[in-house]
Amino acid sequence: MVDIIHRVGIKAPLAKVYAAVATVGGVAGWWTEETSGESQPGGTLKVLFRRPDGGEMGSIEFEVLEPSPGQSVRWRVKAGPPEWLGTDVTFQLQQDGDYTVVNFGHVNWREPVDFMRHCSTKWATFLLSLKELVETGKGRPAPDDVKIDNWN
Amino acid sequence: MVDIIHRVGIKAPLAKVYAAVATVGGVAGWWTEETSGESQPGGTLKVLFRRPDGGEMGSIEFEVLEPSPGQSVRWRVKAGPPEWLGTDVTFQLQQDGDYTVVNFGHVNWREPVDFMRHCSTKWATFLLSLKELVETGKGRPAPDDVKIDNWN
Repeated sequence: MVDIIHRVGIKAPLAKVYAAVATVGGVAGWWTEETSGESQPGGTLKVLFRRPDGGEMGSIEFEVLEPSPGQSVRWRVKAGPPEWLGTDVTFQLQQDGDYTVVNFGHVNWREPVDFMRHCSTKWATFLLSLKELVETGKGRPAPDDVKIDNWN
Repeated sequence: MVDIIHRVGIKAPLAKVYAAVATVGGVAGWWTEETSGESQPGGTLKVLFRRPDGGEMGSIEFEVLEPSPGQSVRWRVKAGPPEWLGTDVTFQLQQDGDYTVVNFGHVNWREPVDFMRHCSTKWATFLLSLKELVETGKGRPAPDDVKIDNWN
């Protein structure tokens, strides 16, 4: 098993960052505008991405898991790209002075395939989009996301 | 051992991307303006970063290793942050249509410490800076690098 890990620091109170990660409206502001479903533990959260021509590029469904102690959010992939099935996406939040630090993981990939490399870089851009959303009020969710390679 | 991996695609011929990764002047255009030393295999490459007040924040010295077959660059950390000692930084380049794909690794970390999380996100911003440099002529090397958290 191999993991993608990242860290960003957001100059804002923890509660504001938590709301951006733990609600459907929050996620729609930094990951993809087409976020739907339920963000409570036990619920199903869905994100959808489109090709430039408007067709569906792909979607992912998560089961929202009980958070670990402390302020955190955990999603388990139930449907989506085959490489994502069974992986978990986790956000652990911690106040550090003026900053809320987000320790991020997309963990339990079976192999370090090229698609995992792509997702690692792409997650960094989405976490910086989360930072921008909370600090300035405007993130860069898909379809306005940062393009990093010939795949997206 | 744990690895940071990333993937970017740069709309440019492979030779142009290779020059930006495999020369001192190239690296100075996307990672840190204070890049010096020798970029040939066997040489020592040095990168230096400063605090906002101009003091030295840290520096890293690499031994440039023989590349693997194909177009690639490999550096081994000889001096720098303790967590970086003995790790390798690798760039494998591959033409894919109009793009040169860069498969990046910063491999053989001993533990997935918070500093590794930070470096993972930071590497993504530097690889996007490399993409920008090659595609537009201007990257975002330190001290103009993207700040991601309370550390840098």
